[in-house]
Amino acid sequence: MSLARELSRFVLSLDAAALPAAVRTEAARSMLNWAGCAVGGCRHPAIDAAVAALLPFAAGTQCSLMGRRERTDALHAALINGMSAHVLDFDDTHLRTLMHPSVPVASSLMALAECMPITGERFLVAFVAGVEVECRIANAVWFAHNADWYITGTAGVFGAAAACAQVLDLAESQTTHALGLAAAQSAGTREMAGTMAKCFIHGRAAQNGLLAALLAQRGLTAAATAIEGVHGFAQVLAPRRDLDAVTAGLGTDWELLQNSYKPYACGVVAHPVIDACLRLRRAHRPDPAAIVRLDLRVSPRALELTGIVAPPDGLKSKWSLFHSAAVALVDGAAGEHQYTDERVNDPVVREVRSRVGAVADPSLSEIEARAVLSMSDGNVHEVHVEAVVGSAANPMSDADLADKVRGLALGLLPDRQVEALIGTCRGFAALPDASAIARAGALG
Amino acid sequence: MSLARELSRFVLSLDAAALPAAVRTEAARSMLNWAGCAVGGCRHPAIDAAVAALLPFAAGTQCSLMGRRERTDALHAALINGMSAHVLDFDDTHLRTLMHPSVPVASSLMALAECMPITGERFLVAFVAGVEVECRIANAVWFAHNADWYITGTAGVFGAAAACAQVLDLAESQTTHALGLAAAQSAGTREMAGTMAKCFIHGRAAQNGLLAALLAQRGLTAAATAIEGVHGFAQVLAPRRDLDAVTAGLGTDWELLQNSYKPYACGVVAHPVIDACLRLRRAHRPDPAAIVRLDLRVSPRALELTGIVAPPDGLKSKWSLFHSAAVALVDGAAGEHQYTDERVNDPVVREVRSRVGAVADPSLSEIEARAVLSMSDGNVHEVHVEAVVGSAANPMSDADLADKVRGLALGLLPDRQVEALIGTCRGFAALPDASAIARAGALG
Repeated sequence: MSLARELSRFVLSLDAAALPAAVRTEAARSMLNWAGCAVGGCRHPAIDAAVAALLPFAAGTQCSLMGRRERTDALHAALINGMSAHVLDFDDTHLRTLMHPSVPVASSLMALAECMPITGERFLVAFVAGVEVECRIANAVWFAHNADWYITGTAGVFGAAAACAQVLDLAESQTTHALGLAAAQSAGTREMAGTMAKCFIHGRAAQNGLLAALLAQRGLTAAATAIEGVHGFAQVLAPRRDLDAVTAGLGTDWELLQNSYKPYACGVVAHPVIDACLRLRRAHRPDPAAIVRLDLRVSPRALELTGIVAPPDGLKSKWSLFHSAAVALVDGAAGEHQYTDERVNDPVVREVRSRVGAVADPSLSEIEARAVLSMSDGNVHEVHVEAVVGSAANPMSDADLADKVRGLALGLLPDRQVEALIGTCRGFAALPDASAIARAGALG
Repeated sequence: MSLARELSRFVLSLDAAALPAAVRTEAARSMLNWAGCAVGGCRHPAIDAAVAALLPFAAGTQCSLMGRRERTDALHAALINGMSAHVLDFDDTHLRTLMHPSVPVASSLMALAECMPITGERFLVAFVAGVEVECRIANAVWFAHNADWYITGTAGVFGAAAACAQVLDLAESQTTHALGLAAAQSAGTREMAGTMAKCFIHGRAAQNGLLAALLAQRGLTAAATAIEGVHGFAQVLAPRRDLDAVTAGLGTDWELLQNSYKPYACGVVAHPVIDACLRLRRAHRPDPAAIVRLDLRVSPRALELTGIVAPPDGLKSKWSLFHSAAVALVDGAAGEHQYTDERVNDPVVREVRSRVGAVADPSLSEIEARAVLSMSDGNVHEVHVEAVVGSAANPMSDADLADKVRGLALGLLPDRQVEALIGTCRGFAALPDASAIARAGALG
């Protein structure tokens, strides 16, 4: 049996009763994080550009755009919400493969949910199925693939196709064709780093997966060997591959349990420093004007990837652990609002940033940091972060996740609507209509 | 200067006055061939499936579907007409790279031409520019790319983006971004051979190139180094590459002059045999019942790729030089109608097919064939085809091309409309409105 057919069989036979409670919980947390990111990114110039270009091609108004007032059809909603959910690079991560699981699957499913009745329970099963499919295909290639390709673009499209095939009630053969049509669209190279094309690649995975399912539903065919064939996805897009990984433990091991959420809106290797500074702030409430210096010891990779000492603008500040430390101490936060030109140029933040020093310490892992805060009154405060928030050893709590969403939605949705959105996501398996999340996330 | 920028500068500065007459002629011939193929494929089940799936997503009725009555928006028209123009595998070929130049460029431009006023002259310049861009990018990679990828899918998208950028009057920076957004969508592996996904890959090149230009017009950005960058198209999708080929002779050597048109609706290596049989038929009018045997000598590759002796159905008969020889002798044609289940099972065709023998002759090139026809009256007729019709040494005449279009459109468009379509394509540079071709090719 071809891999596409084996995955199709899994997807179509997945039953809600087979899902462990932890998987259900993580699905709800993923949806909350997705919704927050999609709202948070909704006013980015990339999204404004896409909306301006594509609204003339809206075939209807069935679907919401998260955080916005415009409405469009399902194919365009999948793309634009997918772009919006990724554009801040704040969405979830399957750490092993660097797949961002929710952008393809949640964005495509939510678009369908606004066109046809899908209960929360049904949505949850399809979401889990889609995430399994994309992450398992990613497991087979990431180690020989990620240097060149954005794996959410290339493998995420399979997840979207599988999830949509499930809720569209496709036959097994149609679902196999949908996965083949997904493979026919697998795209997105890393040359697009630092450009708007990056979020476009991610959003297209959602849209193209939905398109694959819609075409397969009407009889378009593709190769059943799309994944493992000699000219198929895994052979062509990865010089080495482990095809057994696609189905090993299928239905018993759940990739969704490996999903993680970024607590802070910057390069992930700077996160331990932020944890350290937030702890120092909570414990000692340091007056910024009284900070003499902050001495950091970090993993070598943290200094390598986020070593910009004096970032020139908000975008670059995401790659500065010095700026991250300063805003964590001054603002007590490291959300999207801390990485703006305004915060980069704020006099107090600048002054504190100039007092931060960092050395690479090879004895520290990437989830660790040490900080020593020296105050003008002679007090010295030390902290050692052993496992950063968001790591598998220290996952974000539900409360932290809700705070993250509040920060992302600040100024974009009314506060009461944000609380309603959080509540809707938390209880989404019980929703009679899964599209309540889209309605809760869009402006009326 | 990056390759994308250099190509953008070329595309935007290309002037009608700079085009040699032979290039203009070939553009008109390409458009005629494209229109005929798009009409000829319009009732294929792949097109029916795409229309059924995508008509609910039509944002308007500005655009025609060649050969059909339904209307849709520009993005969907580019896809569906592109699929239709390729589905019979009868469209034009840039022989060096195996790029099918017109499907991406003509399908996307025609969709735009139905939404905004574009003169024939303007269309012609954009068409030539788009074909140059895609074929030149193909020149850089084909030798290390085509084994895995459909180059019309992967490189054709650049041609569509470039052509659309031209008629949309994009700035040079926007056009560069459009080529980057094309690269971000470059896709389509050869695993899809023999499935409907193949024509889908080809049609997507048209749609995705148009999408790239529309997004760039509204400000979406991409990497300027999309083609040559270390994680860009050429590096990632080809283990070896010749980047100089992209710009060598740009503006003086015209890839469009290397375009060729298939005279017959079957695998190209069987074409010399068909030429031979058509010549025998014209010269001797053999009664099928009086044919004792036909002995063929062909290139080894012809027997390897089209060696099916007794094809079970119409689709498979395209890969049978035995069937091709039989229909050429019996019907005097080898168009789409000769590769149907009906012709495969016709008693006269079956009988003649059973009397065809073929041997591989390594002294014969792929454009050659020898045939010896033995009749029951003892007459023996010989013919040697030295250069098959459609090869660079023996291009299809304008009259042959028109006959091909007539054959393709048979039963799909009224005869008078077919003649009008042929006339419109032949004079298309002088059209006040280039979309006249689309109107001439669709059912009213």
